[in-house]
Amino acid sequence: MSVTLGDDSFRSAIGEVAAILEDYWEDLREERLPVTPDLRPGDVRAMLPDCVPVHGEPIGDVLADVRRVVMPGLVHWQHPSFLGYYPTQTSPASVVGELLASGLAVQHMMWSTGPAATELEEAVLDHLAVALGLPERFLSTGDGGGVLQDSASSAVLVAVVAALYRASDGRWREHGTEGRYRLYCTDQANSCVPKASRIAGLGEPTQITTLAGTCEMDPRALREQLAADRAAGVVPAIVVASVGTTGTCAIDPVAAIAAVCREFGAWLHVDAAYAGSAAICPENRWINEGVEYADSYAVNCHKWLLTGPPCDAMWVADRHSLTAAMDIRPPFLRNQASDSGNVTDFRDWQVPLMHPFRALKLWFVLRTHGVEGLRAHIREQLSHAALLAGLVRDAPGFELISHSLGLVCFRLAGDNARTEHLRTELDATHQILVTPTTVDGRYILRAALGSRLASQTSVRNAWALVREIAASIPDDRPALSETSPTTSVGAR
Amino acid sequence: MSVTLGDDSFRSAIGEVAAILEDYWEDLREERLPVTPDLRPGDVRAMLPDCVPVHGEPIGDVLADVRRVVMPGLVHWQHPSFLGYYPTQTSPASVVGELLASGLAVQHMMWSTGPAATELEEAVLDHLAVALGLPERFLSTGDGGGVLQDSASSAVLVAVVAALYRASDGRWREHGTEGRYRLYCTDQANSCVPKASRIAGLGEPTQITTLAGTCEMDPRALREQLAADRAAGVVPAIVVASVGTTGTCAIDPVAAIAAVCREFGAWLHVDAAYAGSAAICPENRWINEGVEYADSYAVNCHKWLLTGPPCDAMWVADRHSLTAAMDIRPPFLRNQASDSGNVTDFRDWQVPLMHPFRALKLWFVLRTHGVEGLRAHIREQLSHAALLAGLVRDAPGFELISHSLGLVCFRLAGDNARTEHLRTELDATHQILVTPTTVDGRYILRAALGSRLASQTSVRNAWALVREIAASIPDDRPALSETSPTTSVGAR
Ligand SMILES: Cc1ncc(COP(=O)(O)O)c(C=O)c1O
Ligand SMILES: Cc1ncc(COP(=O)(O)O)c(C=O)c1O
Repeated sequence: MSVTLGDDSFRSAIGEVAAILEDYWEDLREERLPVTPDLRPGDVRAMLPDCVPVHGEPIGDVLADVRRVVMPGLVHWQHPSFLGYYPTQTSPASVVGELLASGLAVQHMMWSTGPAATELEEAVLDHLAVALGLPERFLSTGDGGGVLQDSASSAVLVAVVAALYRASDGRWREHGTEGRYRLYCTDQANSCVPKASRIAGLGEPTQITTLAGTCEMDPRALREQLAADRAAGVVPAIVVASVGTTGTCAIDPVAAIAAVCREFGAWLHVDAAYAGSAAICPENRWINEGVEYADSYAVNCHKWLLTGPPCDAMWVADRHSLTAAMDIRPPFLRNQASDSGNVTDFRDWQVPLMHPFRALKLWFVLRTHGVEGLRAHIREQLSHAALLAGLVRDAPGFELISHSLGLVCFRLAGDNARTEHLRTELDATHQILVTPTTVDGRYILRAALGSRLASQTSVRNAWALVREIAASIPDDRPALSETSPTTSVGAR
Repeated sequence: MSVTLGDDSFRSAIGEVAAILEDYWEDLREERLPVTPDLRPGDVRAMLPDCVPVHGEPIGDVLADVRRVVMPGLVHWQHPSFLGYYPTQTSPASVVGELLASGLAVQHMMWSTGPAATELEEAVLDHLAVALGLPERFLSTGDGGGVLQDSASSAVLVAVVAALYRASDGRWREHGTEGRYRLYCTDQANSCVPKASRIAGLGEPTQITTLAGTCEMDPRALREQLAADRAAGVVPAIVVASVGTTGTCAIDPVAAIAAVCREFGAWLHVDAAYAGSAAICPENRWINEGVEYADSYAVNCHKWLLTGPPCDAMWVADRHSLTAAMDIRPPFLRNQASDSGNVTDFRDWQVPLMHPFRALKLWFVLRTHGVEGLRAHIREQLSHAALLAGLVRDAPGFELISHSLGLVCFRLAGDNARTEHLRTELDATHQILVTPTTVDGRYILRAALGSRLASQTSVRNAWALVREIAASIPDDRPALSETSPTTSVGAR
């Protein structure tokens, strides 16, 4: 036996890590830690050992280095004043599930290599679909079904691959893209959409314009583009709509987009990476209007559903398109269960061959919180966002650009330089993180409320810091208008 | 606060799971559990709750269901008599690191969103490269560098994408594959290679024949194919060589293949998913002969290096080809550190945008075992394989087909049906798992020795079971030759 960490030391090391995490979460909740570290490139590396040791070291030494070097050098994504990007969150229940999965170390690339893991994943995704009010066609009890990908990016890529299979009647499998197929999205789609288009060999996607004054896809413009492309011999393979864009959480008009897709036989993938979790509350279900016509849909449970990263839930309406595009049957993977066609083999639903047991952490979250617990979580975040939006609206010199679900976008009145300056100064405090986007040439700041450790007080404190820093920024105009106009960009 | 699992219950739940895992590993070591469950499709699902509960349930109830329904329904990949596929393993140290990473829930898509996580990952991959004796060009201190992918499949895909960027001088980014580029491998390459070719829009790869009587790529046949393709206007973009094929652990002649790749400007990716870990021992370094000419190289630490899944270590010689192919610069991801070019942003090294903190578990494994601990682990597995190979060689009626590193391939003398029969009967015992492959039309069984919980005794017991079952299989020939010829297929 070559395991240097014996059974006793395993249990005590696990206990030590649990204590570290409890303290960590408490430090975050009390905002005893900064949000971002004050480091230059190379600072951390300089403090790390410079090779694998010849002989094993006690795990206590490694944990000491974690406390000394690693933890102080992290950006604390769970911090109440981490308002950048979209949240990445976890919860105690998720961590417990992850510990279990990590010790079991099962990889269920096929049903036969992990029947319980496979059936649990199918069940959990059916249950989550129902809890989110998603259409019945996504359930595994019909032709559809769900799978846990690592990321929303992978979900888009997998959707593109299935779309190409369908658009080519299978020819793509042998002959590739042949320069014939195209992906469509707006300039507000997450960067993973053009990236997936590239990876799949389609080159850059074709950008569809947004409806005037919004960040939402214009279905009429989509229709015109698809018609023109078809006339020119291009096959419109897939349209990616966003339910909650990254920039401003704009919601594309999915129903109208779906009608265009149907007309042209294009696959419709709905990227609801962030916003999708909100649908756990019935009052937010409007965001999924039209999703009943989508071919695939994905939401990152690691963003807003208390499940640790990576965990992206993806559903398809017709699982055959996925598996027909990606299946592989080398002799070493043949088995009776697969050949029977009665089981799900997740290797054919994703890029990797191996499939990690992610369903466990999601199951722990769903069961220990229950639907009502998850709703309370989402509603609390939404109330934080509403609070912040109100504070922004009432603050002289600030413009509230949009407020959609948990995302509040704002800027300083005046030219972009002032808001850029504000961001730089906020970064320099290390006490808060907001990240920028650009809409119609205007530089704006995004505050995404998502920490489970946040409170009304932490939101007020964060805003007080923003106002304090903003007050120190030189005014480039003689006078600021007291109340700035709020546009409806991305807001619903 | 919406967290239903309070701090006390978190720590006690973690303790409970640690105890479950200790018992589990002990049960496996003592072979008190079967290797595979005796289940039909749907059996597990029928025992699971059928929706997300309205209100949260105590975590103890979920853990009870795990013990009652989930664990008995798994295939136990860590079981000493799990000899199927290639191993997927973890270790206590890895699990401790994973627990920590899961509670920190950092995602370092960019240096700026997790400086310590990013620099630790760079360091760990440099250290591992040195420990494995990999060429200096893969180190991040030069033009190369490493990244942790989830899987060997993703590594191949990412290599293909970088190869297409390079082969097209960047044109691919905008225009896609245009039916122009091609991937080459043998029929012994893992199924993830043709799958990556498809996903990247290249269609099926072109198969290069193997050297007569082996499973190794024939470099001369490769040269002829590339020359013919180039003459026909096809661009040979990438060749995937295997250091340890999945079927028989054959080692492709990488140096000779690399020479051909250089001549035609093709990217050379080396897939060492399983075998690569063996190079931690100097006496096994011959497997990497020629790798100093490869453009990229990948090994699954979750297979044979005691690090839990998913964890694939991938290196490239020129990190610019990767990042130029995959980088994305939307306004919301811009930051000073990235713009400076002085940092590594792992989002540009992989399919997903988010990058999970996998380096921690690998670092825990490397530090607590040390190079010597890891060597002892590999050598122990190799001694188990040598023991089994000897037992097979000495057993009347059996043919030893190949023995390469930890993989022993064998069959029953006679027609394929006898060996297929043997496999079916072994499966039915649920006490052992071996999986098949086919070489030159011959159906053979693969036994991959890789469990850290195995021992000489467990290997002898497993073999005794195979012989016992084999004895019950009707002989289709009047008499079996006492000693069957051993071919050199895949063996070195
Ligand atoms: C709308 C949207 N889609 C996709 C992504 C990419 O997610 P992932 O990191 O899971 O690939 C994001 C990330 O924030 C996002 O906001
Ligand atoms: C040689 C080889 N390459 C690639 C893979 C695929 O690995 P992954 O599941 O990490 O994609 C395997 C899996 O066993 C393998 O044996």
